[in-house]
Amino acid sequence: MLQRLEKFRKTLKEKNIDAFLVSNFYNILYLSGFKTLVPEEREAWLLITTKNSYVFTDSRYSSTQTKNLRLLTAEKELIKHLQEIISEEKIMLIGIEGDDLKLNEFQNFHQYLNGVKLVPTERLVIKQREIKDKEEVEKISKACRISDECLTEIVKTIKVGQTEKEIAFKLEFWLKEKGYDLAFYPIVAIDENSALAHYDTKSKGDKKVSDGSVVLIDFGAKYKDYMSDITRMVFVGKTNTKIINAYNSLLDSQTKTIEKLNMNKTSMLKDTDLYCRQLLTSHSPLFSYNHSTGHGVGLEVHEYPKIAPRSGDQIFPGQVITVEPGVYFENSWGMRIEDTVLVKEDDVEVLTKFSKKPLII
Amino acid sequence: MLQRLEKFRKTLKEKNIDAFLVSNFYNILYLSGFKTLVPEEREAWLLITTKNSYVFTDSRYSSTQTKNLRLLTAEKELIKHLQEIISEEKIMLIGIEGDDLKLNEFQNFHQYLNGVKLVPTERLVIKQREIKDKEEVEKISKACRISDECLTEIVKTIKVGQTEKEIAFKLEFWLKEKGYDLAFYPIVAIDENSALAHYDTKSKGDKKVSDGSVVLIDFGAKYKDYMSDITRMVFVGKTNTKIINAYNSLLDSQTKTIEKLNMNKTSMLKDTDLYCRQLLTSHSPLFSYNHSTGHGVGLEVHEYPKIAPRSGDQIFPGQVITVEPGVYFENSWGMRIEDTVLVKEDDVEVLTKFSKKPLII
Repeated sequence: MLQRLEKFRKTLKEKNIDAFLVSNFYNILYLSGFKTLVPEEREAWLLITTKNSYVFTDSRYSSTQTKNLRLLTAEKELIKHLQEIISEEKIMLIGIEGDDLKLNEFQNFHQYLNGVKLVPTERLVIKQREIKDKEEVEKISKACRISDECLTEIVKTIKVGQTEKEIAFKLEFWLKEKGYDLAFYPIVAIDENSALAHYDTKSKGDKKVSDGSVVLIDFGAKYKDYMSDITRMVFVGKTNTKIINAYNSLLDSQTKTIEKLNMNKTSMLKDTDLYCRQLLTSHSPLFSYNHSTGHGVGLEVHEYPKIAPRSGDQIFPGQVITVEPGVYFENSWGMRIEDTVLVKEDDVEVLTKFSKKPLII
Repeated sequence: MLQRLEKFRKTLKEKNIDAFLVSNFYNILYLSGFKTLVPEEREAWLLITTKNSYVFTDSRYSSTQTKNLRLLTAEKELIKHLQEIISEEKIMLIGIEGDDLKLNEFQNFHQYLNGVKLVPTERLVIKQREIKDKEEVEKISKACRISDECLTEIVKTIKVGQTEKEIAFKLEFWLKEKGYDLAFYPIVAIDENSALAHYDTKSKGDKKVSDGSVVLIDFGAKYKDYMSDITRMVFVGKTNTKIINAYNSLLDSQTKTIEKLNMNKTSMLKDTDLYCRQLLTSHSPLFSYNHSTGHGVGLEVHEYPKIAPRSGDQIFPGQVITVEPGVYFENSWGMRIEDTVLVKEDDVEVLTKFSKKPLII
């Protein structure tokens, strides 16, 4: 945690920012280890100065063991605390998270924090979070092993007549019974529903497995706040050869794209995206997908970098990224193969190790 | 849905706002019925003009049955769509959600939407959401009945030796097995943990039930996007008379505060908050709680109005509010009694009907 803070202070120094106010739940957790109950509610703030860091929260969390915890009360709200520290530490300029702070929150700071310049920034902490440290890689690897094991067990139980929701429930139950968590609500999509890249299994999910079904399972585990993300296809009974052939073409494109991440350490990820799409189209001009090829994974399931047509991101060792091309035929069927991958100095490691051979049950 | 939209258009007219851009996930759902997968990610927008309403989203959701769906693509992003509609409908002024829109999003609009005035607003849709319509009341009532039934079943199974997490897990799976959902992760807090108003059962949760334990259960169900919220105490085996007496004092304060909501339809909720605290202190000067007395419940578990010392909100028929005073003794024990309550024209209805008699198992 201290190393993360020191690294971040270097970024601030480079940008001539005296102090930085972190509002984003995950960025606060990343830089301080402090976590409140509801990510969507503003229950804590973190101020990083050249010498100190302060966590601000209310008395509900006062028993938490955190260095430099400052209590927010009706009499002493955040503004008052900030005014005090600005004056004590002679702060001239505070960086704020423009991609997280609400407009009205900013206007409130702007009105009451006199004599200090507020500088909106974008993706400053998130950029650092792209490169995972050892502890983070260990947690993500563990989350990947958990989802591999979960999938192995649940796939065995898939039967004709089961609904998408039932399969999703089994994945969830398996994880939670063991004290783990879902990274996100699973997408379990059967037959024509698998052609919808963002099928909502929770609200719909009533389609049943039948003989010849194509079952798409996109899910992830959460272990100590870190996520995994994996998609596998299950083919039930007599499967059309055309579908298996399409699967093998997709698999070829996916594995070659992962290898490409190894070979081109300096390349732009929009090129990786194009490479994957071209490979897929080389198998058939009908094969395509309307989503990005991949995204970073960590404390959140969708992080940076992005492997996408308009991505400005580059490959770097320490990134943990998904590679997840797909093939979709509306009203018919779709498939996607997704792994969570760690980019290393001279190698890539696929962290999700569940087999990618066509799985026919 | 159309009535909600018409009511909202009246508000806009009163405020001389030509058009309104909704960014908040729950506000979009409330006004249009349109829902994307991840509330925290900006996957859709809603523009309301005097004559039309438009939902903007990407191709992953293109199959959704929604009136006036406009597709966001790399070539035609939100800004382009807005420019087109602004010009077509001769819009001079667009209201935006200042309490939801990120600073950088606002700056982007400000830069590229020329010739139109952007007016930050606060709590405009959320204010309307305070007063529930018939459909909403029905869904919340059903969520309350579900949580009553769940609690009834799970309370029967509480045994010496069980951990907080195990009890939370049972509540979760009772709901999910039946296709319902949690409103939020349950707080199950035993003995000294019950003294922490925001105990994190998910991250901690290892304390076990023992003879004489005080068990606090704060949880809610979600039914068709609407929530319930209830807290009950369970006393295990031989319970200290002092604790049961404190429970009865708390119960007296809670029930009288609910009655007060009926009698004082025009009063301010900060007075209701004070009333509840004074009642509690009249039982013992040591009895107090460091959280608000209640909050609105609906599509989100924490909505408006607030029953709190600094609340500016008033009581109105149609509000669904929690009433949840507590008594806490650090390092020892705590308790809270919470109901979800509907304010009616000439009455209040407690929607969570689980008994509040001291529950000793």
